[in-house]
Amino acid sequence: MIYLDHAAATPVDARVLRAMEPYFGEKFYNPSAAYLPAKEVAADYEAAKGTIAHAIGAKGADIVITAGATEANNLALSAVSLDGSCRPFSSPTSQGSVGDPLHGRHPSMLYLVTEHDSVRRVAERYGGQGIEVLPNGMINMEDLRGKLSDEVELVSVSLANNELGVIQPLAEIAALIREVRLDRMRRGVRRQLLLHSDASQALNLLDVNVARLGVDLMTMNAAKVYGPKGVGALYVAHGVRLKPVSVGGGQENGLRAGTENVPGVIGFARALELAHEHLNGNRKKYAEWRRILLSELEGYELINRKHCLDNFVVLCYNGIDAERLVFLLEERGVYVATGAACAASKGVRSHVLAAIGLSDSQIAGSLRLTLGETNDEAQIHEAARVINDVVKAEWDRLSGIKASHSWFF
Amino acid sequence: MIYLDHAAATPVDARVLRAMEPYFGEKFYNPSAAYLPAKEVAADYEAAKGTIAHAIGAKGADIVITAGATEANNLALSAVSLDGSCRPFSSPTSQGSVGDPLHGRHPSMLYLVTEHDSVRRVAERYGGQGIEVLPNGMINMEDLRGKLSDEVELVSVSLANNELGVIQPLAEIAALIREVRLDRMRRGVRRQLLLHSDASQALNLLDVNVARLGVDLMTMNAAKVYGPKGVGALYVAHGVRLKPVSVGGGQENGLRAGTENVPGVIGFARALELAHEHLNGNRKKYAEWRRILLSELEGYELINRKHCLDNFVVLCYNGIDAERLVFLLEERGVYVATGAACAASKGVRSHVLAAIGLSDSQIAGSLRLTLGETNDEAQIHEAARVINDVVKAEWDRLSGIKASHSWFF
Repeated sequence: MIYLDHAAATPVDARVLRAMEPYFGEKFYNPSAAYLPAKEVAADYEAAKGTIAHAIGAKGADIVITAGATEANNLALSAVSLDGSCRPFSSPTSQGSVGDPLHGRHPSMLYLVTEHDSVRRVAERYGGQGIEVLPNGMINMEDLRGKLSDEVELVSVSLANNELGVIQPLAEIAALIREVRLDRMRRGVRRQLLLHSDASQALNLLDVNVARLGVDLMTMNAAKVYGPKGVGALYVAHGVRLKPVSVGGGQENGLRAGTENVPGVIGFARALELAHEHLNGNRKKYAEWRRILLSELEGYELINRKHCLDNFVVLCYNGIDAERLVFLLEERGVYVATGAACAASKGVRSHVLAAIGLSDSQIAGSLRLTLGETNDEAQIHEAARVINDVVKAEWDRLSGIKASHSWFF
Repeated sequence: MIYLDHAAATPVDARVLRAMEPYFGEKFYNPSAAYLPAKEVAADYEAAKGTIAHAIGAKGADIVITAGATEANNLALSAVSLDGSCRPFSSPTSQGSVGDPLHGRHPSMLYLVTEHDSVRRVAERYGGQGIEVLPNGMINMEDLRGKLSDEVELVSVSLANNELGVIQPLAEIAALIREVRLDRMRRGVRRQLLLHSDASQALNLLDVNVARLGVDLMTMNAAKVYGPKGVGALYVAHGVRLKPVSVGGGQENGLRAGTENVPGVIGFARALELAHEHLNGNRKKYAEWRRILLSELEGYELINRKHCLDNFVVLCYNGIDAERLVFLLEERGVYVATGAACAASKGVRSHVLAAIGLSDSQIAGSLRLTLGETNDEAQIHEAARVINDVVKAEWDRLSGIKASHSWFF
């Protein structure tokens, strides 16, 4: 079995699970209870939040624990305070396209058109407008600059895209935002302007530091960094006001009530520690594996050429149905994806690949390989061999069909 | 160590953890991915939802997985569709009292005054009004009947209260609600009227069946039934419309996006199976232990006399500071609570004990003992002995202070 879909899910590292285990058992107490063992659990929980914060150069008090990246993205975008913020979500049955809900009004937030649906669909609610990307998947800075009207309160740009792995120039975006803020101040425009980034895919591949990136809000996800599913976090810079996800017992500074998921947060902290420890080694390793794949694979077009995470390889076999390749490869024990898992399961065309200008036929022929800790170098060579085999067989089958058709008709 | 605070938290049952473990490791796949092992995980996840549903006499399609009871309560109350539904949450810093936000308008929802903060504080947002309780903690049916105006869309009454364990007559409430619905229909009043119940505390002590109870929405929590923290569920009867908690990848019928917490849901399902299996045995056991405590403890006033969960013993030592008792008992290895953990941690007076008419001095002297699977009968005898000891020593200390004062002044 060769798993090449680490962007969709990662197994929990054995060391992470070991760190979590006591909190399912003997340290199961409610962190809000008054007796000492519960207070010790509360202290461990706060320490874990401190560790999560430390991994991104922040303080524990700046971290709101969530149930994952989607909830963190939803919470981050609640910073938009315009009347639009109160527009109810569209009904769950109308999971249609993300249109332009502005009707001539100015947008209150901007988001990269290649963002995950948990940003795009929330942005819709807040009257958001998309920022274009260049054919290489990088943000079109001129488009951002042009759309940064005085009504914009928030800009959301992921640190690394979940389908392409393309790394966005956050520091450059932050510099532009600082410039606009200063200009607004000079002109007496008092509206806030915040920068949010979904860093879910990047946390174990880039050295992420909120101050260096210049973000006010940043989304994290344990499940993408060999931590448990169902746990994420939002970094919230001091002074940024958000609307609570849920109200009740007042946990997480009143922003997200509910008994704390102690084992989950302990696991998330340990996963980030491990990611940090192995950051440079892993990057080198993945870069080498990527190089091996690109040299041993045949007949592909490389979609993500540069400025991308070292473990992302997005290939296009124009003319082949990549969904068929996923099934054929699965039969040979190689697990790959055509794009984001949640989109794939609904059979919708990738909005990311469309945004970088791929044709329908290119999109239909695109495979995403994401390398990770379940792999070793032998697997990479083997994967290249199997993919070449399967692709060749598929070309043969297709040309056979073509030949028999041309003979028959 | 004798833990008598099972209403605040329960350890994860070893059999539950065993069921979860494969889903941290070899079955870590994203349920939305296209290859077979991921589809198998998706099938296991759906089967677990089916098990959760089965435990309450429902179908898997009626279950929305949440991050816990608080989120489920927040989601349930979003069924209220009045304009009030769009009133933003008050800022996280204003965690003040739950006041009357109606200003003369009719309430859109009713909730029992003894509900958990995750109902009370959300109800505030929806223009909710409290339903009174009788001195025994049971709902005042006359008060409910009187407040069921044509504007009311939702009534929220927990199945068993989290501080007293008092079991509410849900079937009787449901019958009244059916009657009011019929009356509205006859008069051409088209507004919905739904019944929500938070069943978090009751799931491993009562045989809960949504049809028999007559509820439209019901909250469940894994962490109270020896399952993992960070997982809950909301039962949603067919046709009830809710506002999504979060939007993104469209999971949970579009009501709660985000990669599924597979191990958590597998664990929740196993915990409910075990609860169901041992229901009758556990009830008898707890009833006997409760009887032992009430017969061996001395000098207390019993607060929850009847109609309550067998594992809840709420005692008052009027004149003693129960918070001091918590600390003194902790030193002797006995862990108890003065009320809900989340309220206790903020040092606020119990709104539940106030609602049943206890004086400030009675509230200050009240202890909640909640029995559970970490206990055995020997512990119960020992707990009674230790509590008697500590209470006696505290009375001696207090009378000593009194005597020395009367001598001194």
